[in-house]
Amino acid sequence: MKCRKCGGKATVNMRQHKLALCSQHYLEWVPEQTERFIKKYEMFSKNEKILVAVSGGKDSLSLWDILCRLGYQADGLYIGLGIDGGIGYSTESHRLTQQFASERGLTLHIVDMERDYGHSIPALAQATHRGKGKPCAVCGLSKRHEMNRIARDMGYDVLATGHNLDDEAAVLFSNTLSWSDYLLRQEPVLPSSDGLARKVKPLCRLYEKEMTAYALLRGIKYIYEECPFAEGSTTIYYKELLNQLENQRPGAKLSFYLKFLDAKQNGLFSPKDQLLSNLHTCPGCGQPTSAPGLCSFCRMMEKVGSPEI
Amino acid sequence: MKCRKCGGKATVNMRQHKLALCSQHYLEWVPEQTERFIKKYEMFSKNEKILVAVSGGKDSLSLWDILCRLGYQADGLYIGLGIDGGIGYSTESHRLTQQFASERGLTLHIVDMERDYGHSIPALAQATHRGKGKPCAVCGLSKRHEMNRIARDMGYDVLATGHNLDDEAAVLFSNTLSWSDYLLRQEPVLPSSDGLARKVKPLCRLYEKEMTAYALLRGIKYIYEECPFAEGSTTIYYKELLNQLENQRPGAKLSFYLKFLDAKQNGLFSPKDQLLSNLHTCPGCGQPTSAPGLCSFCRMMEKVGSPEI
Repeated sequence: MKCRKCGGKATVNMRQHKLALCSQHYLEWVPEQTERFIKKYEMFSKNEKILVAVSGGKDSLSLWDILCRLGYQADGLYIGLGIDGGIGYSTESHRLTQQFASERGLTLHIVDMERDYGHSIPALAQATHRGKGKPCAVCGLSKRHEMNRIARDMGYDVLATGHNLDDEAAVLFSNTLSWSDYLLRQEPVLPSSDGLARKVKPLCRLYEKEMTAYALLRGIKYIYEECPFAEGSTTIYYKELLNQLENQRPGAKLSFYLKFLDAKQNGLFSPKDQLLSNLHTCPGCGQPTSAPGLCSFCRMMEKVGSPEI
Repeated sequence: MKCRKCGGKATVNMRQHKLALCSQHYLEWVPEQTERFIKKYEMFSKNEKILVAVSGGKDSLSLWDILCRLGYQADGLYIGLGIDGGIGYSTESHRLTQQFASERGLTLHIVDMERDYGHSIPALAQATHRGKGKPCAVCGLSKRHEMNRIARDMGYDVLATGHNLDDEAAVLFSNTLSWSDYLLRQEPVLPSSDGLARKVKPLCRLYEKEMTAYALLRGIKYIYEECPFAEGSTTIYYKELLNQLENQRPGAKLSFYLKFLDAKQNGLFSPKDQLLSNLHTCPGCGQPTSAPGLCSFCRMMEKVGSPEI
């Protein structure tokens, strides 16, 4: 297999794009593609301040790397969840993220749930009896809340996350199986509203395996392990199902996601304002929330008696 | 496992409904459920004339059986496709359908593609170079056309087909993967319009395996073989994928389909008039068609020089 660009030996063969590239041209291709999606979906400009949510995994560190290579003003935000799982998951991902930032002289903001709120994510899940032994719901809630808070408090225009195509396709699949109204919210860009920064997913059209190849070839040191709590999750199950479809018909995953975005653009769905409820302002943190009174995060913190609330 | 109704030995255990029944109560349960869906989706009344499209398979023969048991005025329509596939597929399904009707003194209309139009379905597919060696597109087109024609010409109010939940879920899955506008048309009932009879699917909430159990326990003699051309079809592949989901979580298939109907009812999608194009009348057969001029069926028949056109 030869590189389409230079005819040299190809390192990465993407059946889904009928494209093979050598390492050097692959490492150029990924940022070019990302830039194309940033422009296509009008995610942000060079004048805007971007906060990248970094977990220490391949996707978010690669995203940060790519945005810097493309010349965007991108700082990082690491949220310490206090997850050990017998592998020092949070300690190790923190160390790798810190090292990534230091080596490149980048600005990294750090939230530590235990230090800042008195409770790790697993402790919060246990104390609040949410999620049947799995802290995933509490974790998602807390991360969303903290990303929004830091972006607002530090004056960032945009919050960027490393969700790749496999992530987006799995969420889409899940929302489709239940025909949830969340279908209306799934977009590469969620515009700024109610004091929240714009949210963008610049990697939404890149396959998970493409991101792995990028991180490896680029020499990014990231945490290989999945979060220990992810094992057996529905998302992983849906990813496997979608991989079956993809193996049967290369490009199926991308087509599923892109045709969804097209159909939405072409008016298949009702306008979302008709279905999504009006938002209120949480008296605790000032973030928008769906019901009057404290938001879910502040209610949780009130329950566990966090020093912050 | 005991029958929920009588405490006797259960023959059929439906994990998806957490319900086990003995043969006798199962044979009562299926028509009860069907009647419930007929009423819920306002399919038809006892005063209306129903044409059941029967293929000789378990679903359509069972549907005809159930409608008769429930006291509806249901006649049959068998369309001879001229498919052999080394197993005399059409000959055998015709024989079984004819036998079913005769034994019960029911009225059966028969269309025979070769006799009435001069060409079997495989011959039509070959002559028109449609479908890359598979006659499925030509078959679907022809069956739709002939069902509509007989229903109109013989004055039936309603055309009923034996599509079961597995069929409906697979079509829904397929339309979802491509986010096709056909999503807007998928309903248990398609109202009468442009001179076409109302179309209904009274078995749309019954699992394929429930229909198999019904046909077997009721002693209906049906053709066991799938159509020889169905092998390797996308629909069968999607059915297998959905069965994986179902095995993982009993009821998943039904939930996928019912939540879709609910979401549609609740306005998730745009009103379909906005997206579906206006229909024209075919100058050949008088049936509605999406573009001006002859409909696809009449164009096909013109091309192969059918004696009927």
